Amino acid sequence: MTVELSRDAFLGGKVHLYQPVDGYRAGIDPVLLAASIEATAGESVLELGCGAGPVLCCLGARVPGLALVGVEIQPFYADLARRNLAENGMDGQVLAADLSALPKELLARQFDHVAANPPYFRTGARSEAADEGREVALAARVPLSEWVNAAARRLKPRGQVTFIQRVERLPELLTAMQARLGSLQVLPLAPRQGREPRLILVRGRKGGRADFRLHAPVLLHRGVQHESDGDDYAPAIAEVLRHGAALNFPS
Amino acid sequence: MTVELSRDAFLGGKVHLYQPVDGYRAGIDPVLLAASIEATAGESVLELGCGAGPVLCCLGARVPGLALVGVEIQPFYADLARRNLAENGMDGQVLAADLSALPKELLARQFDHVAANPPYFRTGARSEAADEGREVALAARVPLSEWVNAAARRLKPRGQVTFIQRVERLPELLTAMQARLGSLQVLPLAPRQGREPRLILVRGRKGGRADFRLHAPVLLHRGVQHESDGDDYAPAIAEVLRHGAALNFPS
Repeated sequence: MTVELSRDAFLGGKVHLYQPVDGYRAGIDPVLLAASIEATAGESVLELGCGAGPVLCCLGARVPGLALVGVEIQPFYADLARRNLAENGMDGQVLAADLSALPKELLARQFDHVAANPPYFRTGARSEAADEGREVALAARVPLSEWVNAAARRLKPRGQVTFIQRVERLPELLTAMQARLGSLQVLPLAPRQGREPRLILVRGRKGGRADFRLHAPVLLHRGVQHESDGDDYAPAIAEVLRHGAALNFPS
Repeated sequence: MTVELSRDAFLGGKVHLYQPVDGYRAGIDPVLLAASIEATAGESVLELGCGAGPVLCCLGARVPGLALVGVEIQPFYADLARRNLAENGMDGQVLAADLSALPKELLARQFDHVAANPPYFRTGARSEAADEGREVALAARVPLSEWVNAAARRLKPRGQVTFIQRVERLPELLTAMQARLGSLQVLPLAPRQGREPRLILVRGRKGGRADFRLHAPVLLHRGVQHESDGDDYAPAIAEVLRHGAALNFPS
């Protein structure tokens, strides 16, 4: 089987990723997730379901000196993630494995940060994608609680988990995180002023005891409606997408 | 024991409530809860933990022809709620009872709407109020899941539950509601533009199957900081507080 790949620029060209033309392709979600992870040089980061590696590569480009590890159930995407890390000059390890059966070498490790961009749609809740790789990437065969449990187990004490997800699954995600993590925070991402957020970044800390926080939404676009030709990203989001800036949770 | 009462105006004088000077006193929270309940004439509404009756009275003032029932664990406040309903010329029934041991006459009924403003603080999470009535009203001796379960059981099929609560307890509330209700929606109430919401209205429908929605925050005050003398409520909130307008969830 030959899969046609494109080579796409992220972070204003700081990162390039090979992605299948017809498969799952990274949008802004993994870029925003990577921007939100408050990791510093010397720390370790595990991504569950890393796909072709956009989160690992974008994070590695912003924060040098991280120990990056990805887990990906689809061997084709795991290979692509390894290639993408190498093409961007980054060290990093990618394991082709199922969340529920992680390899021993990984079960022996704990991380400062765990990140995930789990599939957005429950199986059966949408028509299936024609491409099988895309289907596996989009359809949630595994409940979010399993993603959260796997993340919590692989986390050092005081370590942080950050997920990006469709807002529709916030109750399910909070229910799962509340059972395993503390100091939960939700950062909603809304298209524009006054519009409902469609995506959420959700963070928890292992052993955290701070009150839950729901932050004011981050607005992705300027203005109250789309007016100009081309994109109209809000300045802070344009900094993230075009220059690799961080997207910190409010302190 | 003599308890000193004040007589306080709500909704620009449409409603007057007797409240203990030193006990639990209604702020804007019950007024906003009452404003959010989309009840129409002829429907039935149950409030769990009705205190001195601010929600029942404000709702009754906005929507005539409702069958209003309140449950209140503290007999003193239950008496006061009865008196307040009568003083405002409203029919309504108030039962002094514990959520977990509702009287038979109530267990035989189901309602179109159930509302609650459960105590905001977990027992032990704050210093105890000097006044015992205030303490019972503020301290959460009963987990939110029991409030949600009692509400769901007293609801007709397709009926709606609406709670107001501190944002810190959103994970606990969503976890409980998700187990018993569908079509969950959260309407955050933020002090001002760009500030974290501190209160949330959370709604669910019995048997509902719509996706979860997190709405854009309702801003309580104008501007980005407090500038003027006196209050600076946003126009829509001033309409609610001073003229008894509705505060509808976005459709």
